Amino acid sequence: MDNHSIKVNYCSTGKVKPKSDELEFGRIFTDHMFIMDYSDSLGWHDARIIPYQPLLIDPSAMVFHYGQSVFEGLKAYHTPEGDAQLFRPKKNLERINRSNDRLCIPELDEEFALHAIKQLVGIDKDWIPKADGTSLYIRPFIISTEAYLGVAPSRHYQFIVILSPVGAYYKEGINPVKIAVENKYVRTVAGGTGEAKTGGNYAASLKAQELVANSGYAQVLWLDGVEREYIEEVGSMNVFFKINGEIVTPALNGSILKGVTRDSVIELLKHWDIPVVERKISMQELYDAHENGSLEEAFGAGTAAVISPIGQLTWNGDHIIINNAETGSVSKKLYDTLTGIQYGKQEDPFGWIEKVKAVSKVK
Amino acid sequence: MDNHSIKVNYCSTGKVKPKSDELEFGRIFTDHMFIMDYSDSLGWHDARIIPYQPLLIDPSAMVFHYGQSVFEGLKAYHTPEGDAQLFRPKKNLERINRSNDRLCIPELDEEFALHAIKQLVGIDKDWIPKADGTSLYIRPFIISTEAYLGVAPSRHYQFIVILSPVGAYYKEGINPVKIAVENKYVRTVAGGTGEAKTGGNYAASLKAQELVANSGYAQVLWLDGVEREYIEEVGSMNVFFKINGEIVTPALNGSILKGVTRDSVIELLKHWDIPVVERKISMQELYDAHENGSLEEAFGAGTAAVISPIGQLTWNGDHIIINNAETGSVSKKLYDTLTGIQYGKQEDPFGWIEKVKAVSKVK
Ligand SMILES: Cc1ncc(COP(=O)(O)O)c(C=O)c1O
Ligand SMILES: Cc1ncc(COP(=O)(O)O)c(C=O)c1O
Repeated sequence: MDNHSIKVNYCSTGKVKPKSDELEFGRIFTDHMFIMDYSDSLGWHDARIIPYQPLLIDPSAMVFHYGQSVFEGLKAYHTPEGDAQLFRPKKNLERINRSNDRLCIPELDEEFALHAIKQLVGIDKDWIPKADGTSLYIRPFIISTEAYLGVAPSRHYQFIVILSPVGAYYKEGINPVKIAVENKYVRTVAGGTGEAKTGGNYAASLKAQELVANSGYAQVLWLDGVEREYIEEVGSMNVFFKINGEIVTPALNGSILKGVTRDSVIELLKHWDIPVVERKISMQELYDAHENGSLEEAFGAGTAAVISPIGQLTWNGDHIIINNAETGSVSKKLYDTLTGIQYGKQEDPFGWIEKVKAVSKVK
Repeated sequence: MDNHSIKVNYCSTGKVKPKSDELEFGRIFTDHMFIMDYSDSLGWHDARIIPYQPLLIDPSAMVFHYGQSVFEGLKAYHTPEGDAQLFRPKKNLERINRSNDRLCIPELDEEFALHAIKQLVGIDKDWIPKADGTSLYIRPFIISTEAYLGVAPSRHYQFIVILSPVGAYYKEGINPVKIAVENKYVRTVAGGTGEAKTGGNYAASLKAQELVANSGYAQVLWLDGVEREYIEEVGSMNVFFKINGEIVTPALNGSILKGVTRDSVIELLKHWDIPVVERKISMQELYDAHENGSLEEAFGAGTAAVISPIGQLTWNGDHIIINNAETGSVSKKLYDTLTGIQYGKQEDPFGWIEKVKAVSKVK
C-alpha cells in the first residue's frame, strides 16, 4: 500500500474542546478518526480519515460474539516548544501484530499504521491538552466484522484509531495505592491470550477488580493461573519490586503482557547501573522479603499511570506496608525521567521520541 | 417490566427465504430482530422487535475494546404437525445469567427474555426451514455499549436476539470426526471465564483450531490449563467417553461450559439405566483404556451437532482409533432420541419442549 494513500474527509465544524482541568480518561473523543478495511480478497484497503462517528455494524458481526479483537494504547504529548510527540509508538505496533498473530487477525503494515497515527494526530493536534500531566490518548484497535456466526477467524476486519484528550493521572502528585492479591480469579494462563492485548483478558478481569474496589483497593495483583503463587501483573500494569537494592520484575512467561513502559523501565535502570532482573517471583518470597525488611519498593508500570507506587499489598488478610506507604526514590526517579522524556522536558538519549507534524486542513 | 410491553415494528417487505438445501450455518438472518437497552438509571428498558438491521455503535463502545459480552445459542424446530418449538430454552437463559454474573453484566429477567424470544420466533415462524435436520438458530447476546475507554464494567448494554435458518449439520448421516489433542494452547482455566459463554473464550480458541484444521482435524480436544492432563471439552462441545460400559464425562470444574446437551445426555442415560459418571478424566487414562480395549465410544455433545461421534483422537503423534471409526450404538441412540424430541417426532417425557405460537402481523 502506498504510504500516503490516506483519503481525508474533514469534519465541517469541530467540536468544542474540553477545558484541561475537566478532563477524565477516555470519555471525550476528537474531531476525526482513522479507519481501514480488510477483506480476504483485497487485504487491508480503503485507508481514510473521517469525522469521528458511530460505526454501522451487522448484529451478527463476529466481534460481538467471539471476541476476535485486539487493541493498543499510547499517548501524544505537548512539549514546551509547542511540538506534538509520541513515545515509542513502534513498540505498540510490533505488539499489535503479535496480538494479531495470537488472535488469527491479519498482520498490519507497521510503518503504514504509524504513518496513519501520525497523520491523524497531526490533523487533531489542537486536541492535545497542554496542562501539566495531560495528554492525548491514542487507541488503535482491530475488530472482526464478518456477518457470520461460525466459530472461525473472520474474513473481514476494521482497523480503527480514535483519540481522546485525557487528564493528569495524578491530580495531586504521584501517590501510592493499596492493592489486593487475587486468589480466586485469574486474568489468563500460559497457552491462553495473556501476552496479547485482546478484549477477553480485560473482560475476565472485571469481576475481581469490582470485588476489591468495594473494599477500597485500587487494583488486584494477579497471580499465575497454574500454581497461584507467582506474581504476574497489577491491574493493567506490569509490576516491579525493589528487594535488597535489586529491582525484580516477573519474567515474560506467556501470560504477562510485554509492556512498553516495562521495557523502558528496564532500559533506564540498566542505564543508571541499578541492578534489575526478570525472573519468577512468588508471593511467599515477597512476603518473606517484607518480613525480613528487604522489600524496599513496589510499583506498577504502564502507559496510563507511567509509574504507580504500591503502598500496601493485602494477601490472605495480611497487610504488607511497603516503604511506609510512601513513594520510593527509584519509583520517583523513574516517573520523573519517563515523563520528562515523554513531555520533551528532558533529553531523550534512547531515541524513544517520534515527532508529529501538524497537518493543516486544506479542504 | 410488563411481560407484554414489546413494541413491534414490522419490516415492510420480507427478504427472500433461502432454499432448505442451500442453507449453511449462521450466514443468513431473518426479517426481524429483538433489542432491549440497559442503562444504570433505567435498568433494562425499551424492548422492541424491529426489522433486522445494522447497529449504530460508537467506536469507543466497550465491547470493541474490553470484550464484555455474553451470548447463547439454541434452536427452533419445525414439527410434522407444522408447529414451532424450542428445546429447553430456560436452561439457556439461566446460563446467560450465570455468564452475566461472571462478566459483571446486569441480570436479565429470564421469563421476559423467554417471552421475547418466543415472540420474535413467532413473528418469523415462516423462516424455520422444514427439510430434515434443518432448524432456526437463535442467537441471544448482550454487548457493552458505553462510549468509554476505562477498564470497568460498562453502564450501558444491549440485549439482542437474531435468528438464522441453518442447514442440517450432517448432510450424509451422522459421521465420526478426527480430533487432535491440544498440548500448546488452552481455552481457559479455573478462575478464568470458561464456565461463561463469553467471546474471549472463543477468540482464544481460534489459533489452535486453525492449526489443526490445516492437518485435516475437525476440532481440538482441550486439556485443562493447569496440569495439561485432564480432558475438558472438544471444540465447542462437551465430551463423553464410553469406557467398559460406563459413560464418563469431565466433571464441571470451573473451566468447562455447562452444556444444555450435556445435561440432556446425562438425563437420558440415567433414564435408560446406562451408567454415567461426571469425574476428572486424564488423557493418559483414556489412552490406557484404548490400549486395553475398554474405550468403546467417544462423542461431543452440543446444540449445533447434537451428538458428534469421535472416530479418531491424535495425541502426541499416536492415533487412537475409536470403535473402528464408526458411530457407536450409544451415540446413535442419543442422537436419534434427542433429535426425535427436538423435532417433535418422539414423545418428550421430560418436559423439555416449549411450543411457540405463530404471531400474525397486525400492522
Ligand atoms: C494487562 C496489561 N499489562 C500491562 C500493561 C502496560 O503496558 P504498556 O506499558 O505498554 O502500557 C497494559 C497496558 O497498559 C495492560 O493492559
Ligand atoms: C465451549 C462450549 N462447550 C459446550 C457447548 C455445548 O453447550 P450446549 O449443549 O448448551 O449447546 C457449547 C455451545 O454450544 C460451547 O460453546
